Amino acid sequence: MTSGKRAVVLLSGGLDSATVLAMAKDQGYSCYVLSFDYGQRSLTELNAARSVAAELGAVEHRVLRLHLEDFGGSALTDHSLNMPEGAPAEDPADGIPLTYVPARNTVFLSLALGWAEVLDAQAIFIGVNAVDYSGYPDCRPEFIRAFEAMAALATRQGVEGAPIKIVTPLIDLTKAQIIQEGVRLGLDYAKTVSCYQADDQGRACGRCDSCRLRAVGFQQAGIADPTLYQS
Amino acid sequence: MTSGKRAVVLLSGGLDSATVLAMAKDQGYSCYVLSFDYGQRSLTELNAARSVAAELGAVEHRVLRLHLEDFGGSALTDHSLNMPEGAPAEDPADGIPLTYVPARNTVFLSLALGWAEVLDAQAIFIGVNAVDYSGYPDCRPEFIRAFEAMAALATRQGVEGAPIKIVTPLIDLTKAQIIQEGVRLGLDYAKTVSCYQADDQGRACGRCDSCRLRAVGFQQAGIADPTLYQS
Repeated sequence: MTSGKRAVVLLSGGLDSATVLAMAKDQGYSCYVLSFDYGQRSLTELNAARSVAAELGAVEHRVLRLHLEDFGGSALTDHSLNMPEGAPAEDPADGIPLTYVPARNTVFLSLALGWAEVLDAQAIFIGVNAVDYSGYPDCRPEFIRAFEAMAALATRQGVEGAPIKIVTPLIDLTKAQIIQEGVRLGLDYAKTVSCYQADDQGRACGRCDSCRLRAVGFQQAGIADPTLYQS
Repeated sequence: MTSGKRAVVLLSGGLDSATVLAMAKDQGYSCYVLSFDYGQRSLTELNAARSVAAELGAVEHRVLRLHLEDFGGSALTDHSLNMPEGAPAEDPADGIPLTYVPARNTVFLSLALGWAEVLDAQAIFIGVNAVDYSGYPDCRPEFIRAFEAMAALATRQGVEGAPIKIVTPLIDLTKAQIIQEGVRLGLDYAKTVSCYQADDQGRACGRCDSCRLRAVGFQQAGIADPTLYQS
């Protein structure tokens, strides 16, 4: 185990979490990167995660297999549902989007907490964002604060007076601001995959909500979009 | 899905969680039972869970595979550590016991929360107990209340004003009181396995902390101990 500050960083392989990893590293943390294989459609995202973790010098990268698809309930994991292509995911008037995975951030943060406790890490970094994804209850700042309060009571570190922090550096940033920060830190976004239905080579569909948000982000950031598209 | 009250019940196959399942059923809940295969030493516990879930008429019983052993840090999952046989697990002066699995209840409750959200269940039942296991931070009532507050912010049900309850019917009971309640409800404790190192036939070692607590519980309850021992 390295000395100095240690963080567990949740990494999907998408644009947001890759930026978070770059930010954690920039803040001087030794990064222990955690990804999940949970029956989501886009396995190319996991390949992207491996590539990004390696490029950014993660101390370790673990991929945990989870069987959330057994619970059903989301277009991201339930292959019998169709992926929405029209409605904007970011519109709060739509309520909770179809791509919502039950209790996903709670589950991911809990597993990160287990590893952080063993590593004696000071922080967990997660790329939740309240601006672009306001339909998800577990992306809100009040959820994160409640999780942190719970974690302080759940762990040895909390009992001993040094609770593990949940750090959400993207929470108030627009997609454009996230991209500008990543570019400033030298992150190569061509290595990241945001698309819900990317093909085997990691090429994006360009039509799903996630692709649309990402494309608009590059546009608004005034930065050329390096994303590889299917056509 | 059945009408009426639904609960997700966490079941290890041990004495405590089997009693909780009997209590949830007695309170009129349709029970969706969740067990975890997380690299713990005693797989016979899972066989016990299957048998108990079937006997108590669970609507469904799911066993989720988790790879917590990758994180290390506990005698329950790290096969290179020795199992403690002498020191009482319940002595708070000992601090956090060696059998502590990092963030275990947080992880288990989070996955139960995901299933509860999909099922539109009203409650999650968990057999934590603050009397016999006070060394574990995630068995304390304040942890449970913090988890419940977090869950209310994490889920659709919470957002819609009907948060999922975390029910801990054993939290203030002694082992003897738990056993008396189970016997009152007709539970057959011979089917449950509490031992950390039970053999393939589910026979208990009689020496580990868990065996000792269980044996003392039957003694103090004034009930004949039906546990099958190895010798």
